[in-house]
Amino acid sequence: MSVDLLVKRIKEKGNPSVAGLDPKLEYVPGYIKEKAFNEYGKNLRGAAEAIIMFNKGLIDALYDIVPAVKPQSAFYEMYGLEGERALHKTISYAKERGLYVILDVKRNDIGSTAEAYSKAYLGKVDIDGDEVSPCDVDSVTVNPYLGTDGVAPFVADCKKYDKAIFTLVKTSNPSSGELQDLKAGGRAIFETVAERVNEWNAGTIGESGYGAVGAVVGATYPEQAAVLRKLMPKSYFLVPGYGAQGGGAQGVLPCFNEDGLGAIVNSSRGIMCAYKKGDWKDEQYAEAARAEALRMKADIVGVL
Amino acid sequence: MSVDLLVKRIKEKGNPSVAGLDPKLEYVPGYIKEKAFNEYGKNLRGAAEAIIMFNKGLIDALYDIVPAVKPQSAFYEMYGLEGERALHKTISYAKERGLYVILDVKRNDIGSTAEAYSKAYLGKVDIDGDEVSPCDVDSVTVNPYLGTDGVAPFVADCKKYDKAIFTLVKTSNPSSGELQDLKAGGRAIFETVAERVNEWNAGTIGESGYGAVGAVVGATYPEQAAVLRKLMPKSYFLVPGYGAQGGGAQGVLPCFNEDGLGAIVNSSRGIMCAYKKGDWKDEQYAEAARAEALRMKADIVGVL
Repeated sequence: MSVDLLVKRIKEKGNPSVAGLDPKLEYVPGYIKEKAFNEYGKNLRGAAEAIIMFNKGLIDALYDIVPAVKPQSAFYEMYGLEGERALHKTISYAKERGLYVILDVKRNDIGSTAEAYSKAYLGKVDIDGDEVSPCDVDSVTVNPYLGTDGVAPFVADCKKYDKAIFTLVKTSNPSSGELQDLKAGGRAIFETVAERVNEWNAGTIGESGYGAVGAVVGATYPEQAAVLRKLMPKSYFLVPGYGAQGGGAQGVLPCFNEDGLGAIVNSSRGIMCAYKKGDWKDEQYAEAARAEALRMKADIVGVL
Repeated sequence: MSVDLLVKRIKEKGNPSVAGLDPKLEYVPGYIKEKAFNEYGKNLRGAAEAIIMFNKGLIDALYDIVPAVKPQSAFYEMYGLEGERALHKTISYAKERGLYVILDVKRNDIGSTAEAYSKAYLGKVDIDGDEVSPCDVDSVTVNPYLGTDGVAPFVADCKKYDKAIFTLVKTSNPSSGELQDLKAGGRAIFETVAERVNEWNAGTIGESGYGAVGAVVGATYPEQAAVLRKLMPKSYFLVPGYGAQGGGAQGVLPCFNEDGLGAIVNSSRGIMCAYKKGDWKDEQYAEAARAEALRMKADIVGVL
């Protein structure tokens, strides 16, 4: 199972964290942008090439110490078709380097359309009898607002193509409670979603003891995380909100099970922009990212 | 305001419906696929070219009788980068033909990421001082599961760039009630979302009396639609579920206000696959689509 591969990589690296690749152009060092703009123009193409160079440097510096990367689709879609191309190149390069790739797309739709989204990222598409893989990642994030029939096609493809998903349960942002914390029938909405996730996950448990249907649980809400850990004992948690969003190592602790597994903590800006803090030069951005990733690893492993 | 433009187009055509462009390859007539595969190969490129040809034919047949088109992003993402290119080409062509373009992407994320999504489709992206429009549509759909700070960046760009959004409130699919119908504090979740939509919409009301923040309300749930119409009197409703999903003209009636405005009804498969019903030849797919669009117009206008 895909989640077993994730667990294997986490154990190999001794590091339950994932490097978010959210390459806003303002995060990219000036010398890289200059090179890309000189060669390809100060336009969407140039921006995309700068992002590819930046990401490759990060991946080269991180692939032996982190188990996974999480490109955030928005920051590629933002640069149009060229940005999409940069996303595909980033995914390929990360996979070549042996990284587990979680594509953060938060897709959602009615059944027949969810099926198309699932084919786009986890499955294969049929071209009059030929099966083609349009963009092959290990895992995607999905939004549960449409209920079971919007998620079921992803779960089916997890089984068919050995993939995994992370369903939004309790997100890390300040206003996540507006809907997610509302109490219906004595339970918060995020608890109801968690129960569904647990059901969807039931038929997918692998050797590691975890299943293909994981959950997104923000590091910024440790109390809710503790509740959710019990409701979804066999789901892996993808944990945003560490670092830049304010969550610390103590905040992520409730996301883990007693076996020290069950969660993978994301840091995007913290790693990508590490070179902007302290005495690093722009040219050392990858080295700074590696140092921050190692610091983060020690920070999290220290509390487990 | 963008919504005023939508209302203007609806009035010009006397038609409150939108043609969904969800081009599964199986919807595309064989002769078009053959031509595309012969020229570009039976691969993602060939599939994308077939979709472009198919869509252009549909747009040519529909642009003088429907006010808007709604490409569903999933059915383009499904064909990888080539599919994305087909989406961009479809959007450009629809705009050249004077159609209002609603891109159905159902994007959602935390604030800073929602901002990137909004720039991708409604706004402009900054490339070291130069503002570029990555993919310029009139409107997108958004998912409200993350609360206000996941939607606010879209609302800000609606004001800044004169655009509109449709927020998922009550979706058309069978399991939409799992979360959306749960009662919290005596109100269904979809009602709580509707109240938020009404608040977000408040500062954006245009000459038409409608605002930039609309709602997705399924034709398959007319009772809920009647409740929602009252909760969001100044929001335009994007209404999926007519036709193939089982909703009829009576079902969409509660989505309209007494002025005969306030809703735009989508049909995708019904229009795109009209040629597969009755005595049409494959080569008449566009003619059949036009006939179905006119029938649908008469059907809806008939009950208003």
